[in-house]
Amino acid sequence: MDTPSVYRIALDAMGGDHAPRATLDGARLALMQHEDLFLMLVGDEAKLRPLLKHHGLVGKLAERVEIIHAASVVTMEDKPTSVLKDKKDSSIRVATQLVREGRADGVVSMGNTGAAMVASVMVIGTLDGVDRPCLANAMPNMKGRPTVLLDVGANVDSKPENVAQFALMGAVYAKEVLGVAHPRIGLLSVGEEDTKGNETTRAAAQILRGVDINFAGNAEGRDIWNGHFDVVACDGFVGNVVLKSSESLAEGIMRGLRDSLKQSLWSKVGGLLAKGAMKSFIKRLDYAEYGGAPLLGVKGVSVIGHGRSDGRAVASAIRAALRACEHRVNENIQTSLQRMLPTVSSGEGR
Amino acid sequence: MDTPSVYRIALDAMGGDHAPRATLDGARLALMQHEDLFLMLVGDEAKLRPLLKHHGLVGKLAERVEIIHAASVVTMEDKPTSVLKDKKDSSIRVATQLVREGRADGVVSMGNTGAAMVASVMVIGTLDGVDRPCLANAMPNMKGRPTVLLDVGANVDSKPENVAQFALMGAVYAKEVLGVAHPRIGLLSVGEEDTKGNETTRAAAQILRGVDINFAGNAEGRDIWNGHFDVVACDGFVGNVVLKSSESLAEGIMRGLRDSLKQSLWSKVGGLLAKGAMKSFIKRLDYAEYGGAPLLGVKGVSVIGHGRSDGRAVASAIRAALRACEHRVNENIQTSLQRMLPTVSSGEGR
Repeated sequence: MDTPSVYRIALDAMGGDHAPRATLDGARLALMQHEDLFLMLVGDEAKLRPLLKHHGLVGKLAERVEIIHAASVVTMEDKPTSVLKDKKDSSIRVATQLVREGRADGVVSMGNTGAAMVASVMVIGTLDGVDRPCLANAMPNMKGRPTVLLDVGANVDSKPENVAQFALMGAVYAKEVLGVAHPRIGLLSVGEEDTKGNETTRAAAQILRGVDINFAGNAEGRDIWNGHFDVVACDGFVGNVVLKSSESLAEGIMRGLRDSLKQSLWSKVGGLLAKGAMKSFIKRLDYAEYGGAPLLGVKGVSVIGHGRSDGRAVASAIRAALRACEHRVNENIQTSLQRMLPTVSSGEGR
Repeated sequence: MDTPSVYRIALDAMGGDHAPRATLDGARLALMQHEDLFLMLVGDEAKLRPLLKHHGLVGKLAERVEIIHAASVVTMEDKPTSVLKDKKDSSIRVATQLVREGRADGVVSMGNTGAAMVASVMVIGTLDGVDRPCLANAMPNMKGRPTVLLDVGANVDSKPENVAQFALMGAVYAKEVLGVAHPRIGLLSVGEEDTKGNETTRAAAQILRGVDINFAGNAEGRDIWNGHFDVVACDGFVGNVVLKSSESLAEGIMRGLRDSLKQSLWSKVGGLLAKGAMKSFIKRLDYAEYGGAPLLGVKGVSVIGHGRSDGRAVASAIRAALRACEHRVNENIQTSLQRMLPTVSSGEGR
């Protein structure tokens, strides 16, 4: 068996609202959870080195950690393209460079999403036949399983061939990483019927009907949550709006509920008694549990997490990267696409 | 004052999953709530007449009700365009005809949404200068106020001018009907910065920046819920997906929470004690309270409700229609658009 016994993940230790505290916490959690993980912490060595001990990265764990120095950080205010210009020495750029050079198997970042995408696409490069990589997000559906929504923000104004590719890449991800035997694929639209949709979805549906996957037609907004589909593909504009809207709505509902439970003594007591049950439920919806969206279609594993990730969310993102490595997602995407070519390639590949 | 003392609303009594039970219940509720309401119940007279008494439409209330016979019904399976062809005698078509002829001030339907839109647009007609009417939905935001999201499904592949018009129509609706003094307008996009968005939103933003309204730039998915904007405009594809996704997510969370509260004795007791508080919270999110999306831009009031509306939701939709009449939404939209022409009209008006 030629599977390596250890996967090397480059973690952008400086990326995210709570870095490097959250990234180092996440590093420790991930190392404890996964024995086959080796972490390259990319960032300002002078800052990171003294923190290792405080974050429990000592003894046996420390043997699976290496610091790779990077002088600067891309902030949330920086333009994504800064990684190609004045921030070539940034942690995210250096981390993607490690993947390009084969020194790391994958990269994980909680920093500026646009910058992480640009660095991944431009430095690591895209898989042959992939016109546009896309961000996949596993949404916790009401059947207690994940529904992969993609693209959630890597692309806007996608062409039908792009959306069809997103669907295929999502299918490979659902099958290989999430273990869904025959993922049921849907195309996000405004009605179930084939005639419903916009120009892009109708043309994408036609492409997908000609491809050997379990394409089940149009999915509606509700199908992201009800578990009727394993993969729901869409342009990144729609996916991003739905993702951000859903996070905000779910948080708002939970907060509103907590507030309303504080309004009377009885409801306060009730809220306390029900706390455990509510907590376990909230966990099912918690982004930290599902943290990290893999950027599918690049020549290496790249997982992009939420800016406000805590340690637990960082560990989830690292786990997602590790799984993508273990299950050879890229090779599988490549094979899948080749098998289905030329139907699904627009031929404009980079 | 030339405001009529009574508004005549044509209710598609046969439209919706629970019609005519829900529509008749809603009719009674609405008549009890609004003294300035006269209802024209449109549908199969032989079916409706015997039901009036059972649904409490007797005595004084019955004096404000009239049955207008319509032989057929557009089902959920019928094509929207059926109202123009083989279902010219359908309840929704007849109801819109009443508005066209000036016999009714507005129409309300819980039936086939596409059919209600086609009938409203084609039979009643669009306002001068309006290229495409759009469906507006008041979403209950976390500040306890409504955020008007539009278009939620009347149009796909909207042009920038269309989206800009949606924003203007939404502003008039928020101001006149919802009483927001200076509605803050956002354009739904994938980031706050002006550069973020797709081709359509970037061009729509440019139009809106040149118009005398309170345009606050891009709104993100989360801004639909956080109360930062009073009006959020988008293409109907995105709006529809977000609306359906949100309804499903909110329902799923509440159901999941109820289920998890049943899992232990303590949480059961807690759930019972907290029931009142939770109910009052759920009410804030209840679609039945916000039922009914006005179709803005037609030459008469048209409100389209949820297919699964119960009596309460039907009454909400009737209330929305009544308010639109009282506040002369159409005249105000017309005036607004004319004041801002030619900027916001693409000149392809019907």
